[in-house]
Amino acid sequence: MTAREAKQENLEQTMNDGLAAIEQAMFDVTNSEVEVLRDASHHILNSGGKRIRPRLLLLSYLAVGGHDINHIARPGAAVELMHTASVVHDDINDHGIMRRGRPSVNSIWGRTFALLTGDFLFTAVYELMSPYKDLNIDLANSATALVEGETLQASAVKNNNFTREVYMRIIALKTAALFKASSSIGAKLANATDEQTEALANFGFNIGLAFQIIDDILDIVADEEQLGKTSGIDMEQGRGLGVALQNNGTAVKEDPMESIKRKMLEGDTIEKGREQAQQLVDMAIAGLHVIPESDAKDELIALAKLVIERNY
Amino acid sequence: MTAREAKQENLEQTMNDGLAAIEQAMFDVTNSEVEVLRDASHHILNSGGKRIRPRLLLLSYLAVGGHDINHIARPGAAVELMHTASVVHDDINDHGIMRRGRPSVNSIWGRTFALLTGDFLFTAVYELMSPYKDLNIDLANSATALVEGETLQASAVKNNNFTREVYMRIIALKTAALFKASSSIGAKLANATDEQTEALANFGFNIGLAFQIIDDILDIVADEEQLGKTSGIDMEQGRGLGVALQNNGTAVKEDPMESIKRKMLEGDTIEKGREQAQQLVDMAIAGLHVIPESDAKDELIALAKLVIERNY
Repeated sequence: MTAREAKQENLEQTMNDGLAAIEQAMFDVTNSEVEVLRDASHHILNSGGKRIRPRLLLLSYLAVGGHDINHIARPGAAVELMHTASVVHDDINDHGIMRRGRPSVNSIWGRTFALLTGDFLFTAVYELMSPYKDLNIDLANSATALVEGETLQASAVKNNNFTREVYMRIIALKTAALFKASSSIGAKLANATDEQTEALANFGFNIGLAFQIIDDILDIVADEEQLGKTSGIDMEQGRGLGVALQNNGTAVKEDPMESIKRKMLEGDTIEKGREQAQQLVDMAIAGLHVIPESDAKDELIALAKLVIERNY
Repeated sequence: MTAREAKQENLEQTMNDGLAAIEQAMFDVTNSEVEVLRDASHHILNSGGKRIRPRLLLLSYLAVGGHDINHIARPGAAVELMHTASVVHDDINDHGIMRRGRPSVNSIWGRTFALLTGDFLFTAVYELMSPYKDLNIDLANSATALVEGETLQASAVKNNNFTREVYMRIIALKTAALFKASSSIGAKLANATDEQTEALANFGFNIGLAFQIIDDILDIVADEEQLGKTSGIDMEQGRGLGVALQNNGTAVKEDPMESIKRKMLEGDTIEKGREQAQQLVDMAIAGLHVIPESDAKDELIALAKLVIERNY
C-alpha cells in the first residue's frame, strides 16, 4: 500500500465512523416513548437517503483540520433531521405515496401522524443543537429559509407565476440554505478562518443549487421505480425546473403539464438545466482554492461532481 | 398613594413593558419576506390569546430578582410561538374553523399554508433561542413533549383508549411541560437558586395541568360565541376531560359523544375536574414558600387562581 492509499483508507474510515456517529445521534434523539413518533421517525430514517448534508458537514469539518468525530455527531444529525422533517411534511402537501422506495409516513400512518412526526423531527433539532450556542443562528436561518422556500413554491403554483427568477429564489431558500449551513457549521466546528468558512459556505450553497436543479431534472426524466419516490409529482403540480425554464418570465395560461411535456420533447429544458448545474459545481470547486490540499478536500470535490453526475 | 400602591403600580408598568417587548420580538422574528408566512403568522398573533406562558416566564423572572426586561423578550416570545405553532397545526388536524374569535389560519389560507406557517413558527423559535445555550435544552424538551402529547392524544382517540391515566399523561406532555419550561427559564435567567428554580418549575407544571383541565371543561360547557373558537371539537373527536373521566379505565364501545353527553347531565365530570384543578393550584401556590415575598410573587399566585377562575 502506498502512503497515498493509506491516507485515503484512513479518510474512508473516518468518514464511516463519522456517518455512523451521526446515524446513532439521529436514532437516539428520535427514540421517543411515544410509539408512533418513534416508529414513524425510524421508518423514514431507515429508508436511507443520500445523507448528503451530513457528509458535507463532516467533510467541511475535516477539510479545515477538524479531527474529533464526536464533535460533529449532533450537528450532523441536526441538518439531516431538519431535511427529513420537511420531507415528511412535503409528502402530506403533495400526497406523496412513496419516498425513497418505501411507503411514505403519510401513506402508512395518515395525515395527522405525519404532520406530528414532521413536527417531532423539527423539535428533535432543538435538542441536538442545544449545546451549540454559536451555531444555532446558522441552523435557525437555514430552517426559516427552508420553510420560506417551500411556501414560495406553494404560492407560485397557486398563483401560476413560476418564472425563472422565482424558481432560483425558491431553490436557494428550500435547498441551498441548508447545504450552506451544513458546510459552514462543519467549518466553524473545526475553528476554520473566516476566509475558509466563507469559501465552504459558498461551496455548500452552490452545490445545493446544483443538487436541486438535478433533482428536478431527475424528477422529470426518471421513471417511478428508478427514483424510488412518487415521480412526476413536482411536474403535475406545476412546479420545478420544467415549468420554470419554459416560462421565461411570463405566466403560461395553458395546462402546465401539457406545455412542459411539449418543451421536454425539444430537449431544451433538461440541457439548459444540466449546463447551469455544471457551471455552479465548477464555481463551487474553484472557490475551494483557499482550502489546503487534503484527502477531505478531494472528497468534497468528488461530492460536488457526484451531485451532477448521479442518475438517482 | 401608599407605598404599597406605588410598588404595585411599578410592577404593573414592568409587566406591561415586558409583555410589549415580548410582542415586539414575536412580530419581528415572524416578519418574513414571504408574504403568506408573515401575514398568516401576524394574523394568528393579532388574534390575541392570553399570553399566559410569557406572563409566567416574566413573573418567574421578576419573583426571583430579575430586573432587565430586555433579557426576557426573546425567551418569552419563544414559549408563546412554540404554543402558537402547535395551535396552527392543531387546527389542521381538527379542521378548526375559528380560533380566538377569528377565522383559523387553516380556514383562510388552506391546509398547505397552515402546515407551513406552523413549521415557520417552530423555526422562529430556533432563532429566538439561539443566544441561550443553557436554556435551549429546557425548551427543546418541552417542544418534544408538546408534540408527543398531541400524538398520544391522536393515538388515544384512534384506539379508543382514553383512560384517566392516559389523559393525565397527555396533558402533562402537551401543556404542562411548556408551562414548566416557561417558569424555569424565567427563574434561570434571573440566576435563581436551584431550590427556587425547582419550586417555580413545579409551580408552572401544576398550573399547566390545571389550565388544561379547565380548558377541557370550558370546551364542554362554553357555547361557541363565548369561547371564540370552534367549541365542542375536542368532544366530538372523543378526546379531552369528558371522555377521560367517564371512562374510568375501561374503553367505551358506544358512541363516545353520546356517553359524554349522558355523563355531563349527571354533572359529575365537570365537578370532579374542577376539584382536581383546584387541588393542583393549591399545591402550586404552597410550593412557592421558598420564593421571597414580593409583588411579583403575589401576581404569580393571582395568575394561578385566574387559571381556575376564568370562564373563557
